[in-house]
Amino acid sequence: MSTNVNTLQNENCGNNLLKGKRGIIFGALNEKSIAWKVAEKAVAEGASITLSNAPIALRMGEINRLSEKLNAPVVPADATSVEDLTQVFEQSQQLLGGKIDFVLHSIGMSPNVRKGRKYDDLSYEFFEKTLDISAVSFHKMLQVARKLDAIAEGGSIVALTYVAAQRAFTGYNDMADAKALLESITRNFGLLYGPEKGVRINTVSQSPTVTTAGSGVGGFDLFYDVADKMSPLGNASADDCANYCVTLFSDYTKMVTMQNLYHDGGFSTTGMSLAAMEQYEKSRLK
Amino acid sequence: MSTNVNTLQNENCGNNLLKGKRGIIFGALNEKSIAWKVAEKAVAEGASITLSNAPIALRMGEINRLSEKLNAPVVPADATSVEDLTQVFEQSQQLLGGKIDFVLHSIGMSPNVRKGRKYDDLSYEFFEKTLDISAVSFHKMLQVARKLDAIAEGGSIVALTYVAAQRAFTGYNDMADAKALLESITRNFGLLYGPEKGVRINTVSQSPTVTTAGSGVGGFDLFYDVADKMSPLGNASADDCANYCVTLFSDYTKMVTMQNLYHDGGFSTTGMSLAAMEQYEKSRLK
Amino acid sequence: MSTNVNTLQNENCGNNLLKGKRGIIFGALNEKSIAWKVAEKAVAEGASITLSNAPIALRMGEINRLSEKLNAPVVPADATSVEDLTQVFEQSQQLLGGKIDFVLHSIGMSPNVRKGRKYDDLSYEFFEKTLDISAVSFHKMLQVARKLDAIAEGGSIVALTYVAAQRAFTGYNDMADAKALLESITRNFGLLYGPEKGVRINTVSQSPTVTTAGSGVGGFDLFYDVADKMSPLGNASADDCANYCVTLFSDYTKMVTMQNLYHDGGFSTTGMSLAAMEQYEKSRLK
Amino acid sequence: MSTNVNTLQNENCGNNLLKGKRGIIFGALNEKSIAWKVAEKAVAEGASITLSNAPIALRMGEINRLSEKLNAPVVPADATSVEDLTQVFEQSQQLLGGKIDFVLHSIGMSPNVRKGRKYDDLSYEFFEKTLDISAVSFHKMLQVARKLDAIAEGGSIVALTYVAAQRAFTGYNDMADAKALLESITRNFGLLYGPEKGVRINTVSQSPTVTTAGSGVGGFDLFYDVADKMSPLGNASADDCANYCVTLFSDYTKMVTMQNLYHDGGFSTTGMSLAAMEQYEKSRLK
Repeated sequence: MSTNVNTLQNENCGNNLLKGKRGIIFGALNEKSIAWKVAEKAVAEGASITLSNAPIALRMGEINRLSEKLNAPVVPADATSVEDLTQVFEQSQQLLGGKIDFVLHSIGMSPNVRKGRKYDDLSYEFFEKTLDISAVSFHKMLQVARKLDAIAEGGSIVALTYVAAQRAFTGYNDMADAKALLESITRNFGLLYGPEKGVRINTVSQSPTVTTAGSGVGGFDLFYDVADKMSPLGNASADDCANYCVTLFSDYTKMVTMQNLYHDGGFSTTGMSLAAMEQYEKSRLK
Repeated sequence: MSTNVNTLQNENCGNNLLKGKRGIIFGALNEKSIAWKVAEKAVAEGASITLSNAPIALRMGEINRLSEKLNAPVVPADATSVEDLTQVFEQSQQLLGGKIDFVLHSIGMSPNVRKGRKYDDLSYEFFEKTLDISAVSFHKMLQVARKLDAIAEGGSIVALTYVAAQRAFTGYNDMADAKALLESITRNFGLLYGPEKGVRINTVSQSPTVTTAGSGVGGFDLFYDVADKMSPLGNASADDCANYCVTLFSDYTKMVTMQNLYHDGGFSTTGMSLAAMEQYEKSRLK
Repeated sequence: MSTNVNTLQNENCGNNLLKGKRGIIFGALNEKSIAWKVAEKAVAEGASITLSNAPIALRMGEINRLSEKLNAPVVPADATSVEDLTQVFEQSQQLLGGKIDFVLHSIGMSPNVRKGRKYDDLSYEFFEKTLDISAVSFHKMLQVARKLDAIAEGGSIVALTYVAAQRAFTGYNDMADAKALLESITRNFGLLYGPEKGVRINTVSQSPTVTTAGSGVGGFDLFYDVADKMSPLGNASADDCANYCVTLFSDYTKMVTMQNLYHDGGFSTTGMSLAAMEQYEKSRLK
Repeated sequence: MSTNVNTLQNENCGNNLLKGKRGIIFGALNEKSIAWKVAEKAVAEGASITLSNAPIALRMGEINRLSEKLNAPVVPADATSVEDLTQVFEQSQQLLGGKIDFVLHSIGMSPNVRKGRKYDDLSYEFFEKTLDISAVSFHKMLQVARKLDAIAEGGSIVALTYVAAQRAFTGYNDMADAKALLESITRNFGLLYGPEKGVRINTVSQSPTVTTAGSGVGGFDLFYDVADKMSPLGNASADDCANYCVTLFSDYTKMVTMQNLYHDGGFSTTGMSLAAMEQYEKSRLK
């Protein structure tokens, strides 16, 4: 990379924002995944990474293709298993040759949503799984990493979330609760990890994104369109999100911690946009 | 109560704010409990109520004394048990002679706190229990009540919470996560229950309170003092909280839902008070 | 009022929540005004009050009718004038026979909105007036009252606001900025006034309301409908708001201060409702 | 800059994050100023910039030294003057050879603070100036820029703020209100400017910083220490802030708008830290 091309369009080029850094990306399934884009972008910015996902996701997805492309080893793990997570952090340190500088948690799944159980008819066994997979897994990851002292001084941990943690969205179901729990874990672990090692922990609250996970939510297409019209910059894409995550992993943001950072084209602070209002008005005229 | 004395000092007198209403109070342990105070106040305001708590709490506490004083039947229930909760709502309707107008959820317990497990050394079995007892129990309560159609049109459900759901407090441990989850459930269930039956669901975020539960948190006395100095009106007491809850159960607040309402003497919106600053300064002068 | 009828339907009856209390209501214009409803309700709950509004509003409005009905003297005041406000607090104490227990600030006006100046083409002379009338007037009121020591121990001050202070709404224009300023003044003055005299200061963030002021905002009817569908309980009415304000003036809420309290049927914590989604979908099907 | 050194320590080197971009930095006074640091960092990252400050600040400060060092022309302006701001945007476009990609607003001053007027004894003439200088100036800047079509597609505008806009801090006085107004303008103008040109507008809520402006607030040293102990990562420095601003000006954050972004070492989401608690405890033991 002798000439430094200042463009974000070309995913193979970056600004060396993560030069020499080591990372772990959890949750890349296929090329629609935000985690997939983050992995690509992190490597383009100079990082070396490992990839991790659940064994079943590894079979369904195309992560091996990504692994080859990025020269990034895959360490399978059920993110609800402390043992598996321990393996991921131990092996990743060995494979990458040192402590970990950044981690992405992009993991979420609700059996209630999958099985069509509505929010007033939840299976509590499923609810527990939703929370365990989508939120408690983040605590496990952090606790494991800290016990192993696997995170480098000043390291950066990011988890992906959604504004349903703040406001209720029809159809988002118990994933909203999982996201609220995830964001709380972020704050509470950040309180401990910051003073000790300068480790910062944040969530990125992303626009609805056309991914395999996102599309699982009922009425997604319609809602995607509403959100797009309600966002002054439109919905942020997975590529946009990857760019943003890179800044959070970099040394440029060393003093940002325990924050929920909206990456959503302005949706979260928009009460009513002109575009949504005009669309809405049409429905009344007919 | 032939003359209506307009005072809140005398706990036996009120303004008939809840005249003719039926309520269920979960979580009264002894006379320090907020739930105990709410029960007394609700009855003083004209309501008829039932009391519920876990079998073990019934043995430890003095709830029978409260029951006799208020003529309020006790329906024992493990609040994590859908079956038990079903019993509470069915029996309460029978005992009180109709649908339920208001419910108080004042339930929280963390085995991690009790066993001295720090936030970076949680037992995940305990963590699941913390969430189940302190937060998921609220969803169970709401789902059971709704399936039974046990809540009257315009009914009001309140759960007690703490500002640790928004900001991290050293020592509050996984209870902070439970409270964040509790508040999320409040919003998400409110989205469903409002349009159907006008039922409103809110949390009250209370000052640190000298109760058996509150005192369980480490360094409570010191923190109680800091919070008191940081609150422009000082810490709100359990009695104050009971008064506030009564307004939320009443018909005066029929359009308030899905809110987290701070009842904390202004703590939540204070960044730095003069009193705390002066106290803090002393520590530097010596 | 020999029998205490526990109903809120009949505006002439209450629960003596404000028995013996003295209040000042700023901003009643006509019977659609929220301030008008608050005045009626406060008197029905046992308070004695004075009314204040700008001289021009007194001429346009029907406040004299209200004054007669409630036996509530009118003290005219330009709320941007420290001198006029001093008159209001001095005369009100004389007329009512003691210190003031509660105050309602329901004052807002934007010359930019009136003259059709868009938010990217503001007149800064008008902008200053918007801020002065709609927000700084509240500081003036508080500073005057405090200097006169006109507020009773434990008194309660409420100003009306709108969620546009948190999220941007097309068409709400510089009133959004005024409301943000108003809410900030609430917090900052509350920090001072609480420790001194137990005086609490809050804002009520009300649903869009069909008032003379509310209707001034462009596209109001359409937006009113959207907000109604986005609110799980529907839009809160001026009558509902009056009931809520009464609880805040009462001794039941003595420990609530520096809060922005949403009285909006759940709008503020709703990201997307089923009703709004269905309406929106119609617009796409045609 | 033939070799791209990936370090943030050396202020003369960067990652070309702003290569080819044109910016205007308002508010650099001397080398303690955040704006000064942002100017240096922006240039180190490849931007060309102009500097602007009030005539009086130009005389007091050392901006000419910065101007020479960075080869950045100075365009004097009273930021409350639409005419002056028009000059800044017109001349900056000419001097830099095209539309402006980024702007920093780092302007704040309270005559009430300077003259020792407390928050319950404000001069309203001064208060208006506080608002005009510290907040309305931002609207003027945006309105002027938009009318001139001076901002490039996808441009990024940042203003510096403080958490006193959300929570009340003793001694911060009417600057808290100005910051709340500033953040509101950010949201409301972002709603307009986003859809038109992809322009994003955000505030950075920075730790208390040892600058000439920061030190003006009473009891600053003590408060700086409290904030440092309450922040899990400690207080963020002006250099840290400059690094963060650079990411917001870059193309990596194109979908972030209308946000208030805390750059504060975690202060904003910390309720109580262990370090602050221990310090506080000392004050009680003696």
